[in-house]
Amino acid sequence: MSRGKLNVREPLLRRLPRYYRYLNELKNMEVKRTSSLELGERMGITSSQVRQDFNCFGGLGQQGIGYEVNALLGRIRKILGLNSRYKVIIAGVGNIGHSLASYSEAASEGFDILALFDVNPRLIGCSVNGIMIYDIDDMKEFIREKGVEIGIICVPKDRAQATADIMIEAGIKGIWNFADVDLYGPAEVVIENACLNDSLYTLTCRMNILQCF
Amino acid sequence: MSRGKLNVREPLLRRLPRYYRYLNELKNMEVKRTSSLELGERMGITSSQVRQDFNCFGGLGQQGIGYEVNALLGRIRKILGLNSRYKVIIAGVGNIGHSLASYSEAASEGFDILALFDVNPRLIGCSVNGIMIYDIDDMKEFIREKGVEIGIICVPKDRAQATADIMIEAGIKGIWNFADVDLYGPAEVVIENACLNDSLYTLTCRMNILQCF
Repeated sequence: MSRGKLNVREPLLRRLPRYYRYLNELKNMEVKRTSSLELGERMGITSSQVRQDFNCFGGLGQQGIGYEVNALLGRIRKILGLNSRYKVIIAGVGNIGHSLASYSEAASEGFDILALFDVNPRLIGCSVNGIMIYDIDDMKEFIREKGVEIGIICVPKDRAQATADIMIEAGIKGIWNFADVDLYGPAEVVIENACLNDSLYTLTCRMNILQCF
Repeated sequence: MSRGKLNVREPLLRRLPRYYRYLNELKNMEVKRTSSLELGERMGITSSQVRQDFNCFGGLGQQGIGYEVNALLGRIRKILGLNSRYKVIIAGVGNIGHSLASYSEAASEGFDILALFDVNPRLIGCSVNGIMIYDIDDMKEFIREKGVEIGIICVPKDRAQATADIMIEAGIKGIWNFADVDLYGPAEVVIENACLNDSLYTLTCRMNILQCF
């Protein structure tokens, strides 16, 4: 495949982690082969959409034979960047920050949470799940020194963009944002806004549409 | 507008909470009027897309005059179902469940978290943020008696569908799912899968694409 031409549009980008999950489930059930039809049914899309998706990566199956689960899983794992390890920090040790720091499977999935940062003097020097909480004023230096790649933002929304700006200045590659506000940065920094309220309001919206219209 | 014909397709459904957030920000800045151009720039979409979105709801502005922020906000708030109060329970008091239960602004936003449920006998009888933890075996009865509308699933993924099935049997209207697996239910129950791993893997995927291709 041509490495210069990978075109992953937003809807496909959203489907890739789900393909990855389903293929992992199939693997765990020791299923060796799958088809675009089976995957499409799981995903709620047409089999032709599935084939089109995989064609974006130069095609991952053979017509009439389907897809080899392990090979497809390996390929998608690589596209998702999950064959790398990531150095991660968390800014803001409130409920969500604490909860993410406590996620004990992070390391086994390739995410090494190196440090937590907060403004609260009572938290600084404590640790969560064995991970030390530092003064957020030391975050920039820490990112630079350790070569941190991913910053998770769990600070209040009025501090979120300023925190992102510090991370970006320090050379971070990706930001996973839990503050209830969209964050912006230069094109070379990837920002994934995971606003939980947006997800909750989508739920209530769909409930409302079902009831009222 | 015709109440029978509201057509909210998935991409619009995803944009609505963001419109709501931006309009709230404008309101907080005491901005009275906005335009499809301004909203489009904030959203990263064209102004014509913004107008098309609002046309789905019978149009919410006037050509050449733009949109009145408060009126638009009120309308979208209603479409999002945020002018109602919701009775909510959380199943699974692990990291995420604990974190959501601790979210003290939930009530002021219309979400009354009535109870938490878990299988762990050491947790049952304790409380988080003043909300009692009950035996998950009592969840079905509780949902029925109290008329709970939203169930939040924070149990391990191998227990998630079974937990959802109990909620659905008890008459729940919406499920907000944090287990790392898609859940299924009848058409009259709204299920919003908020898999955090999917969001994280989207981040690493975009980082990987930037670096490698």
